[in-house]
Amino acid sequence: MATVIKLAEQKPDNREADTTKRDISEVVKRLTALVEGELAEVNKVILVEMQSEVALIPQLAGHLIAAGGKRLRPVLTLAAAKLCGYTGSRQVGLAACVEFIHTATLLHDDVVDESDLRRGIATANAVWGNKASVLVGDFLFSRAFQLMVADGSLKVLKVLSDSSAIIAEGEVQQLMTANDTDTGEEAYLSVVKAKTAALFSAACQVGAVVAERPTAEEEALISYGTNLGIAFQIVDDVLDYSAKQAELGKSIGDDFQEGKVTLPIILAFRRGNEEERSFWRRTIEELDQKDGDLEHAMSLMAKHNTLTDTLERARYYGAVAKDALGLFPESEVKETLADLIDFCIERGH
Amino acid sequence: MATVIKLAEQKPDNREADTTKRDISEVVKRLTALVEGELAEVNKVILVEMQSEVALIPQLAGHLIAAGGKRLRPVLTLAAAKLCGYTGSRQVGLAACVEFIHTATLLHDDVVDESDLRRGIATANAVWGNKASVLVGDFLFSRAFQLMVADGSLKVLKVLSDSSAIIAEGEVQQLMTANDTDTGEEAYLSVVKAKTAALFSAACQVGAVVAERPTAEEEALISYGTNLGIAFQIVDDVLDYSAKQAELGKSIGDDFQEGKVTLPIILAFRRGNEEERSFWRRTIEELDQKDGDLEHAMSLMAKHNTLTDTLERARYYGAVAKDALGLFPESEVKETLADLIDFCIERGH
Repeated sequence: MATVIKLAEQKPDNREADTTKRDISEVVKRLTALVEGELAEVNKVILVEMQSEVALIPQLAGHLIAAGGKRLRPVLTLAAAKLCGYTGSRQVGLAACVEFIHTATLLHDDVVDESDLRRGIATANAVWGNKASVLVGDFLFSRAFQLMVADGSLKVLKVLSDSSAIIAEGEVQQLMTANDTDTGEEAYLSVVKAKTAALFSAACQVGAVVAERPTAEEEALISYGTNLGIAFQIVDDVLDYSAKQAELGKSIGDDFQEGKVTLPIILAFRRGNEEERSFWRRTIEELDQKDGDLEHAMSLMAKHNTLTDTLERARYYGAVAKDALGLFPESEVKETLADLIDFCIERGH
Repeated sequence: MATVIKLAEQKPDNREADTTKRDISEVVKRLTALVEGELAEVNKVILVEMQSEVALIPQLAGHLIAAGGKRLRPVLTLAAAKLCGYTGSRQVGLAACVEFIHTATLLHDDVVDESDLRRGIATANAVWGNKASVLVGDFLFSRAFQLMVADGSLKVLKVLSDSSAIIAEGEVQQLMTANDTDTGEEAYLSVVKAKTAALFSAACQVGAVVAERPTAEEEALISYGTNLGIAFQIVDDVLDYSAKQAELGKSIGDDFQEGKVTLPIILAFRRGNEEERSFWRRTIEELDQKDGDLEHAMSLMAKHNTLTDTLERARYYGAVAKDALGLFPESEVKETLADLIDFCIERGH
């Protein structure tokens, strides 16, 4: 009798959860509609390439990857290629690569430590799947590189292997600064840039690379992707404490429970008095949390306006992203990519 | 205060442990001496490329990778290049890639599931490092691809991304057949080929690729690496039950404790009577083990001659590996590569 491998109930990454669970917003729908044909091809490639004779691989990967999701990153690759006037088909396989790398990251993010278990964060299912999550993630990551090799461009390989290394560095850095109330805004941003923005950036850049556009356009798409990614992640960190989310019946305070030091907390800690800092140290560093602590945390954030001010920071990155598009001629894709920035930020309100 | 990330006491992969802990055998020393200069360069590349501003990365990677070890896989790459008469220096960076991929695999192999904890297999340290092991492994894996991209050969990238995908598939397959006494010899071999032999094969093949040798020589090195890798793993699975190991004061029976279905057990199960099969089902499938069970398991293996016969299987692969070298002109490297096969098998006695 074979051991039954329980499928981990994959908890989507925080930055994703709030948007996938909500109705896909009108602007993402519009952007997706503009690359509908290519996206259908991407989905075919994904389904074919996640196959393996080892049954657990398509099973577990399918659980996460085929379930749908909004495929934001591959859509960005497709849209960037279109923005650059590309008429070939190389973006299809590469968009699938981007999604595979993203999924591998999610699977590895899902791995938990004994310390997490003690804090009661992980579900039993997630724990049963630790090893399976790692290995299937490795498979998808290797598959992504095989797809890139099949594409045959060393430049694309460089863009995506560089961004993979940066993502891994960012994840390790996040692990090292976890539960550390001394984390400053710069350290927070550095993690956000690495773990989220690097793949947004690469996803967009690849569009320019396949279209063989001049450096200026490639750099513009790097800037768009990077700054959109930063804004996206900052807003997601706000949403974890958002009253609107609570109204919609979504769970809030997951980051608080895990002791994640996100910008709303960094600002509250810096602006707080000694008594407040003791509260943050107890709840975030020592993870000694009781009933009412989340409410108190939110009242401190409200007192110091940290959610609103965090959104202001996101707005800055959104503005930079928008101007990065300036080089490109007017088109429906360009307009929709610009609108996407607004969507990313507005969902925080 | 930053959370202290405890370094997992990295338990080397079983297939490695028995050889690294023993004196490095004379033949491995001889092979290493033949590529001494290049290996020193490989070690430099490894030290440089595992650096990161994120301190935990060189810390954890260094713990495993810089500690020395016999670097068998990169030595194979260097030796294969020399066998092919290559006089350039590309093999250096690629040998470092091979070692990075191997180390990433070890780190990911180290990840444990809650189920393992319940069985008391994992050390507390190994558990604390679950997440760190995964992420640092991801970093090394990405770094390996960056090094390949810097080398610039799509063929090398294909060889190593293909083998990475095969390794991941093999690891998942192993997970699925764990504790399954129905596992047959073919399924066992299929895992061994994927999880161990694929990287041995790629390590050797890369030597022929950089030397731009004809297909026949490249295929000969694939065959040598594959069959050497299979023999190496089979013998390692025997060593886990070896009386000689026990005499040397090495721990034995780790595979038994984990319920790993290796060839000595597969043969004992097939050759056993119903009572014996019940014993294997209780100890290996249900992991219900008590004092004296390991001794009983070893007495059943002795009764059915399964350790000796498993070594005979390894001898077959060794013979194939040796003949694969036939194409190459006589040289000290060729002779030593042939001797390496004998060493691999003889250490099982």
